[in-house]
Amino acid sequence: MSKTTIIAEPGKQEVTVSRIFNAPPERVFKAAIDPKAIPEWWGPRSLTTEVESLEPKPAGKWRIVQTDPSGNVYGFHGVYHAVVPPKEIVRTFEYEGTPGHVVLETSILENLGGKTKLTIQSVFQSVADRDEMAAAGMEQGILDSHERLDEFLAKSET
Amino acid sequence: MSKTTIIAEPGKQEVTVSRIFNAPPERVFKAAIDPKAIPEWWGPRSLTTEVESLEPKPAGKWRIVQTDPSGNVYGFHGVYHAVVPPKEIVRTFEYEGTPGHVVLETSILENLGGKTKLTIQSVFQSVADRDEMAAAGMEQGILDSHERLDEFLAKSET
Repeated sequence: MSKTTIIAEPGKQEVTVSRIFNAPPERVFKAAIDPKAIPEWWGPRSLTTEVESLEPKPAGKWRIVQTDPSGNVYGFHGVYHAVVPPKEIVRTFEYEGTPGHVVLETSILENLGGKTKLTIQSVFQSVADRDEMAAAGMEQGILDSHERLDEFLAKSET
Repeated sequence: MSKTTIIAEPGKQEVTVSRIFNAPPERVFKAAIDPKAIPEWWGPRSLTTEVESLEPKPAGKWRIVQTDPSGNVYGFHGVYHAVVPPKEIVRTFEYEGTPGHVVLETSILENLGGKTKLTIQSVFQSVADRDEMAAAGMEQGILDSHERLDEFLAKSET
């Protein structure tokens, strides 16, 4: 039933996630880098999300903090490397629970006549890193994020 | 004859380079992040190297400019993600001739009783990116850098 495709080939150190959203690339791009929009859709529904900083330009930093219902806090941060509206974002991603383990994330937005195919490729330092992230619930997090982004785009359209 | 090992498995999006240097990790680590040392050993011998900026701390930027005998200029830059003396450096690397193509580079220094095994793993966004970098003379650049670093460490010891 999911409209999100997740590809993680055995033995490779990358994951590629794609989905078609019912909004033009300009709106999907904005939702991806707008500190006000991100808490509405980023991550699992069970967590509260706060954008602490976000500078969408080369060498610009970002940090997002999530809190679960028990009050546990999870931090994520990285650096933007390329920001080409409304087509491409390259940034790094670190979960602060595993410092030094860096993911290189490339998002490509394709215009499909008013809809947008968003493809996010995450490259890990090792196959083991990728598989640990998968075991930590990455897939559910992605599916939740995409469902929520879909809803956010439908809601913010009006 | 080379003392440098370069591993680039077919179909993988990484290259791993290693070499044992005749100096303790502290000295190899310093040579890797010291703006005064880098022009002495970084890159092919035929180029002049200038460190424009270098902040060896998480989210710190670096930029290096090289000039060939004909006056052509080649820029490289990136961002440090982890700097753990004298053991580990994680940073990104972009050649400015191919913007948006980012390499995630992890350097590990192991202490072998006063010598240092330096292992540098470079992860690319794709196998094609890696293979293009290889075709562009990456291997000779690495071998030159390692020979020069070996000489620099021997010279600066006294």
